[in-house]
Amino acid sequence: MPSTLILLRHGQSDWNLQNRFTGWVDVDLSETGMAEAKAGGEMMAAEGYKVDILFTSVLKRAIRTSMIALDVMDQLWVPVERSWRLNERHYGGLTGLNKAETAAKYGDDQVLVWRRSYATPPPVMEESHPDNPKNDRRYQHLDIPVADIPMTESLATTLERVLPYWHGSIVPELTPGRTVMIAAHGNSLRALVKHLDNMSEDEIIKLNIPTGVPLVYELDDNQGVLSSRYLGDPEAVAAAAAAVANQGRA
Amino acid sequence: MPSTLILLRHGQSDWNLQNRFTGWVDVDLSETGMAEAKAGGEMMAAEGYKVDILFTSVLKRAIRTSMIALDVMDQLWVPVERSWRLNERHYGGLTGLNKAETAAKYGDDQVLVWRRSYATPPPVMEESHPDNPKNDRRYQHLDIPVADIPMTESLATTLERVLPYWHGSIVPELTPGRTVMIAAHGNSLRALVKHLDNMSEDEIIKLNIPTGVPLVYELDDNQGVLSSRYLGDPEAVAAAAAAVANQGRA
Repeated sequence: MPSTLILLRHGQSDWNLQNRFTGWVDVDLSETGMAEAKAGGEMMAAEGYKVDILFTSVLKRAIRTSMIALDVMDQLWVPVERSWRLNERHYGGLTGLNKAETAAKYGDDQVLVWRRSYATPPPVMEESHPDNPKNDRRYQHLDIPVADIPMTESLATTLERVLPYWHGSIVPELTPGRTVMIAAHGNSLRALVKHLDNMSEDEIIKLNIPTGVPLVYELDDNQGVLSSRYLGDPEAVAAAAAAVANQGRA
Repeated sequence: MPSTLILLRHGQSDWNLQNRFTGWVDVDLSETGMAEAKAGGEMMAAEGYKVDILFTSVLKRAIRTSMIALDVMDQLWVPVERSWRLNERHYGGLTGLNKAETAAKYGDDQVLVWRRSYATPPPVMEESHPDNPKNDRRYQHLDIPVADIPMTESLATTLERVLPYWHGSIVPELTPGRTVMIAAHGNSLRALVKHLDNMSEDEIIKLNIPTGVPLVYELDDNQGVLSSRYLGDPEAVAAAAAAVANQGRA
């Protein structure tokens, strides 16, 4: 019997709305983002998905997305584990900057490199940055020393910290017949999709996961992909992915 | 350094409002109950409490209370563990009955015995009862066989299933300087208070824990009580406890 994996990317946040690089800053969902989470929950409820365990990042836009969706599904009681390893990619020194301003300053091409290159990280965040995660209580509980908390990340290094959590914590829950939900972020979910679908670096850079639309995998006993699909209306999914791809243009 | 334990009893539910025996039925908070949770969160936020781990029952009125309170405190990210062992006392065959009707049928005294006697359980719930927890997916994951799921409970048997969870899961988190929050129910919290304060059966039967008001213990290394107090205005706390005590009169 296959296991089921549901990936759910959080919807619009207050900083998406302002077109700012967010990364590890704990920005909340906008009203639109909450509506996206509700719609995602309704899609899962309509198809009768029953979640056995939930994984989230430690960022509230993903946590709130999961809460809203599970509330719609009347499954608030499911066990939940949170980990920084499911956080969004850390945007280093770009954190907090308006994307259009950054593009105007560094040029569209450089911003696209930072956003879309597989292995090139943005400039390192300075220790004095107001959003330095080393000063945030939630990261004192990391399974790495505080000194090793990332201060910038590429998609490659994001993948490197997501995969140990996948193998160590999530895969053991993917036993036959069970359903695992992961509520997370564009780049931590890309890391998982690259791994699951065995994508090249070029392919994953071009992949835009739409927000608020559950992406459902059926997996065999070795987490081989039997099928994958987005729930809901295919045209709406394509439009949502295109909207994400257009972020960060000046 | 002491550890801190915060007990938070959920506020008014839809069935409290209808004066019905709820027990393990997964009734949601009323609007008033949500406001109580928010007020509880504001009391904790005002005093700067920083939660390290949250424990809840598997019932949404406690889960939602914790979510609302932690949201107010901007601590939605705290790790959370849920257990049926923190559930409300199972009211057996009284489940779903209007408390005033039950009192009119059996007499105030019998109802008070079932609600307030330490060791007398109500009649056992019939297997055909629409709220039989054996038919609820969340209890398939119990750490006891489904056949052993309780079908009625006294305060004594509630205590017997709360304490193993206290010792096995909660106490290990109460290390020096840490803060543990438990969001649960009148009788599962009474079980903990009886244990912590070494109360007699007579004393605990008379204790009415007010809803939505955080009860904060400071504990030594052996979970001995150094201090305990309700947050907020003492007169409001007394009024809330009296309101709970008056439930179930015909």
